[in-house]
Amino acid sequence: MQENTPKPVAGIRLAAVEAQIKKADRNDLVVVELAEGTHSAAVFTQNRFRAAPVQVAGQHLAASAPRYLMINTGYANAGTGQKGLEDCHVTCDLLAHNAGCAADEILPFSTGVISERFDVTRFRDALPSAVAALNEANWQAAAEGIMTTDTYAKVVSRQVDLDGTLVTVTGMAKGSGMIKPNMATMLGFIATDAAIAPDLLASWVKSLADVSFNCAIVDGDTSTNDACVLMATGKAGNAPISTAESTGAKALYAVLESIFVTLAQALVRDGEGATKFVTLEVNGADTQADARKVAETIAQSPLVKTALFASDPNWGRILAAIGRAPVDVLDVEKVAIYLDEVLICENGACADSYRETDGSAVVSQPEFTIRVELNQGQASQTLWTCDFSYDYVKINAEYRS
Amino acid sequence: MQENTPKPVAGIRLAAVEAQIKKADRNDLVVVELAEGTHSAAVFTQNRFRAAPVQVAGQHLAASAPRYLMINTGYANAGTGQKGLEDCHVTCDLLAHNAGCAADEILPFSTGVISERFDVTRFRDALPSAVAALNEANWQAAAEGIMTTDTYAKVVSRQVDLDGTLVTVTGMAKGSGMIKPNMATMLGFIATDAAIAPDLLASWVKSLADVSFNCAIVDGDTSTNDACVLMATGKAGNAPISTAESTGAKALYAVLESIFVTLAQALVRDGEGATKFVTLEVNGADTQADARKVAETIAQSPLVKTALFASDPNWGRILAAIGRAPVDVLDVEKVAIYLDEVLICENGACADSYRETDGSAVVSQPEFTIRVELNQGQASQTLWTCDFSYDYVKINAEYRS
Repeated sequence: MQENTPKPVAGIRLAAVEAQIKKADRNDLVVVELAEGTHSAAVFTQNRFRAAPVQVAGQHLAASAPRYLMINTGYANAGTGQKGLEDCHVTCDLLAHNAGCAADEILPFSTGVISERFDVTRFRDALPSAVAALNEANWQAAAEGIMTTDTYAKVVSRQVDLDGTLVTVTGMAKGSGMIKPNMATMLGFIATDAAIAPDLLASWVKSLADVSFNCAIVDGDTSTNDACVLMATGKAGNAPISTAESTGAKALYAVLESIFVTLAQALVRDGEGATKFVTLEVNGADTQADARKVAETIAQSPLVKTALFASDPNWGRILAAIGRAPVDVLDVEKVAIYLDEVLICENGACADSYRETDGSAVVSQPEFTIRVELNQGQASQTLWTCDFSYDYVKINAEYRS
Repeated sequence: MQENTPKPVAGIRLAAVEAQIKKADRNDLVVVELAEGTHSAAVFTQNRFRAAPVQVAGQHLAASAPRYLMINTGYANAGTGQKGLEDCHVTCDLLAHNAGCAADEILPFSTGVISERFDVTRFRDALPSAVAALNEANWQAAAEGIMTTDTYAKVVSRQVDLDGTLVTVTGMAKGSGMIKPNMATMLGFIATDAAIAPDLLASWVKSLADVSFNCAIVDGDTSTNDACVLMATGKAGNAPISTAESTGAKALYAVLESIFVTLAQALVRDGEGATKFVTLEVNGADTQADARKVAETIAQSPLVKTALFASDPNWGRILAAIGRAPVDVLDVEKVAIYLDEVLICENGACADSYRETDGSAVVSQPEFTIRVELNQGQASQTLWTCDFSYDYVKINAEYRS
């Protein structure tokens, strides 16, 4: 999906190796080295069952400035209890030994099957070659190495001039099912060589995740393992950015936002079995929370999603989903629904001007927008979602086999 | 699904005719006549978009004692605005004219495609033959006539002796997708020849729906059209039941509950594309509402449902669903999960005693129980649900074509 070869970020070296953690013939262990002085901030899954690596990464991030990320696919090391925590610590110790850092300078991440333990000897055997292979040019390989059911690697770069200093941002992400707001099964690692103050970085990773990954819904299932890390190495040589208000900060934030959004949309485009990319825009709600609830209810409706798969402009199902959204106030007589610019429903009923051929033309496209006007208040929410196909069932019925 | 031929209920006559409302070669219009003196009570969908017939039925029930039910399949007459309401009134007028009753003595019900209008002339042409065909013996034909994507008719009878008077209860229901609590796409019509006081009947239909239809989840989508009507003709000759506390009332209530539960479970068993019938039992919650939220989150998880389809005891997905249930307090360390009697997870992690072959043996059965012990408080909730198969997608992607 990247427009071009991902650009290296000064201060970030990566490696992807074949550790045979679950399957052979693929890279499944990725190590990322952050230069000394790098600031990092992260957001983690809101699921109450937090995988062992999520717990450990949170502790390590609070204790030290991270020098390494270690990401494995195959097993999520979630629902593995005390033993899973021990396994996670063992793998951190192994990397610390190989890399010559403290164990709590490592942030571990796992993705894959929940509830089964991995074999730590696979890490022991593969980590030396991973550390030896660290290179700034390995973003593409790393993005491929963190994939699970993804059908392509998600990595993207942008550059921006900050008062004469060229700054690079490169990010990678994985995830294609179990996607819904609040850090659902996805991992995102976004690095820049800009210098950004730690407090600002911590605030930015939250606001950036909110307008990107937290707006992506594939199936409504959230994960035990999700995490998104934003890293700033400071190697570009710009004057450190410590306030969001400066021109440079705004320019850099805009680039970061475009990277986050591009990665988040890529997760939905690659949604398990997805054949359509649908932008869902809910306007005119009383509150932002209401707008979001209406949008989420539509995005998670199996009946809406199967109709999208069928290229069927079955707006009655959209209307029924709106009608069951858990909001306090909703006047059905005021609701209007558009497919792109085609008005299909107004005042809660089929629009007189509507012709089904017009609706069909819109939903037959691979990408389109469903716009719901509640005509109630001023709040809006946009989410990205996809359809629900035979392949979603196939992928998720066969994932473990 | 009925154990035997459904038993007639004195005072109830039914007819099912082919009105060609949407498709040919099937009965799609059902008329039910209630003898004078029959008491009726009903519950309707909680969806804010209430179909025209739901609105009209509610008004008519408040205004008069119903003498007729009129149920059509093909079109749901929902999202049809003012014109849909007018269409509904026209069809009531037509039946009133044919049957010789007032229009507000008729309760109309529609099920089928949302958002398209039906042709009232189909009712006009077919209603005379429907009225002419009314007969106490037509329960089976009526149950077939109200089907949409159902694969078999759902009708069941029981009898009970009330102080020497034999009383009959017969009920029919339809619905196989868009099923979730709070009266999702289903219609249920349950009649008895017992005499029951109107206030008690109104209270009973609510409590009976709560422990039956409101515990059935196929896909989490709720409908604009659902309704359940409980009718008591009083023709059996028993002493009228006016309090829930008498022995007779308890015996009759037990029979009614078994009819309601049997019909509700039949909806799930016939869930669109369903290959498994799963009883989901959540115990040890702080509150009933919490128990229900946890159960609903599991029942509506596409990842859990596709794993069930695959006969995969992927309890990590169950655990992840529990972890995102919208409850205030949940201690993941206390959670245990059983498949039938096989303990698969305790203290939030895989049980030492668990062998995957044991879990696989359970979920390979067509019917089994998932039991979640939250070990938090005393509240419980049981729901019935099904898996999510290729055929669910197929049925809902092709429903309109």
